Amino acid sequence: MPEFDLIRRLRDIVGETADADRSGCLLGIGDDAALFRSTPGEHLAVCTDTLVEGVHFPAGTHPGAIGYKALAVNLSDLAAMGAEPAWFLLALALPSGDEAWLDDFAQGLAALARDAAILLAGGDTTSGPLTVTVTAAGRLPAGTALTRHGALAGDDVYVSGLPGRAARALCDLESGVTPPAPCLRALEFPEPRLALGCSLRGVASACIDVSDGLVADLAHILERSSAGAVLEAESLPSGDGLDDLPDEQRWRFQLAGGDDYELCFTAAREQRGRIDAIARECGLPITRIGTVTAAPGLEVRRGDGSRLELPAGSYQHFAADSGAEP
Amino acid sequence: MPEFDLIRRLRDIVGETADADRSGCLLGIGDDAALFRSTPGEHLAVCTDTLVEGVHFPAGTHPGAIGYKALAVNLSDLAAMGAEPAWFLLALALPSGDEAWLDDFAQGLAALARDAAILLAGGDTTSGPLTVTVTAAGRLPAGTALTRHGALAGDDVYVSGLPGRAARALCDLESGVTPPAPCLRALEFPEPRLALGCSLRGVASACIDVSDGLVADLAHILERSSAGAVLEAESLPSGDGLDDLPDEQRWRFQLAGGDDYELCFTAAREQRGRIDAIARECGLPITRIGTVTAAPGLEVRRGDGSRLELPAGSYQHFAADSGAEP
Repeated sequence: MPEFDLIRRLRDIVGETADADRSGCLLGIGDDAALFRSTPGEHLAVCTDTLVEGVHFPAGTHPGAIGYKALAVNLSDLAAMGAEPAWFLLALALPSGDEAWLDDFAQGLAALARDAAILLAGGDTTSGPLTVTVTAAGRLPAGTALTRHGALAGDDVYVSGLPGRAARALCDLESGVTPPAPCLRALEFPEPRLALGCSLRGVASACIDVSDGLVADLAHILERSSAGAVLEAESLPSGDGLDDLPDEQRWRFQLAGGDDYELCFTAAREQRGRIDAIARECGLPITRIGTVTAAPGLEVRRGDGSRLELPAGSYQHFAADSGAEP
Repeated sequence: MPEFDLIRRLRDIVGETADADRSGCLLGIGDDAALFRSTPGEHLAVCTDTLVEGVHFPAGTHPGAIGYKALAVNLSDLAAMGAEPAWFLLALALPSGDEAWLDDFAQGLAALARDAAILLAGGDTTSGPLTVTVTAAGRLPAGTALTRHGALAGDDVYVSGLPGRAARALCDLESGVTPPAPCLRALEFPEPRLALGCSLRGVASACIDVSDGLVADLAHILERSSAGAVLEAESLPSGDGLDDLPDEQRWRFQLAGGDDYELCFTAAREQRGRIDAIARECGLPITRIGTVTAAPGLEVRRGDGSRLELPAGSYQHFAADSGAEP
């Protein structure tokens, strides 16, 4: 039984255990974060993501990189909602009380927490197989959240940064090859696009972070928006760590590889000028890669109009993982 | 290096990464839950707790019991703050996509979620060693949270229910003996004391839930309140599942055994009548078991005035665990 069915099943069985409105919940399962009523004029976005040794990172990964990434993947979810980081909780299962390991882990975590100005407000530690769960909360002006629904036919599709580097690093590591430095950095220290997420409030029509792969994640937007899309493979941006690859191989990393933590979003054509300005303000490439269509389905085309086929599913972490919400 | 030092260390290294007030945080690390500003007139209490197979429950435990308990231990933290359940997130690592297992797990979780009227608002699922992390949020009128600080010399010390049954069940199971049914039930299906927690707002001076053992948890209140206490062993309530035990053995289960998820709280002597009324309203025994002292330290006395000595630490789960906040 595939993971996705398990998640659906869990959701269906647990079902409606309480009134969403009474619970203060404005948007529940199925987006990058849940949304709640909060202080006047504000909403609270809350997400949770787990990293497991042997699944999301290989045994022997530097503990500082684990600490960094456990927080980064959650901050990326907040960025995808357009939320500003506020606080986080940390649940840590550790096989042994190794002091040096914990120091390094905490330093990696703290460096990013300081950069993002997010507060460690509590948590839980226990012995067990190495598993790190962060729950992060961010604030945003009421009514401005970026969600997965809202993409309209005719909207442009964009991606931030240079997707594909994390996937290349993973592939190289699995083949025993040393990845190019920018690729390894993208895999181990992804930069959550927090400033971009906030700038996209009122500009993007839908947004998601690319954790499962560009095509797989864009498909979540399309499903929730009841729309389709056509992507132009030639428009995918190349650069350091990717430009030695043949186009077809690069495109596969960029379209089907996960762990990039870039933002994929849609916006009306009228927003093109504003999006160029945001790219300059954020000092980040933002590339228009396709168009939302009324007809369902997601196609990727080469420059000659031929269709680029991707393997079904089109994504794996270090090992099997669903990466999605229940 | 003991677990507790690891937690302190983590907290010290991560340190002040953001301004608590700007983050909306009113009470951070070191209580049963963190407290945040929320909708007008309300505060939000948020806690997280992890259950790991082989640490918090043995392999082969019925999945419905795991689902129930993963939520119950978090609801118990909300009860200890005097909060009403609002919503929760679930992070689940599962070794395989076993459909029947997931059905049972979800049904155990959903039964308690419905009873507590708490909404599943999101989460994350992944493959990995069986680990369940719940993050739960509850609401309470601003300024009414029950905390670990606030106990004053002369206050009475109380415990709810019949502590010691979970510890007896655990001990019996480890010795290959079938535990009495009420004990096994207390271990597998602890009832979070949500109604009691809400009733104690404005009545209790400090409160904690008994997850690590009565003495160990009361010690957290005393440390945060800069106070001490004397407990009377003879006052500890006996009952179904415990009354066949010699007093000394029963007291050890009750004082040093964990996993009870009863509330231990302190209150001024003037509140005795009110607390009797609350016990009747909640249909739950509430027993006065000692007195807060100005002098630090925690003593347990027998009826003849002699001191009952407990082993240092005085607690373990199924295996080693800190059970505390970082």
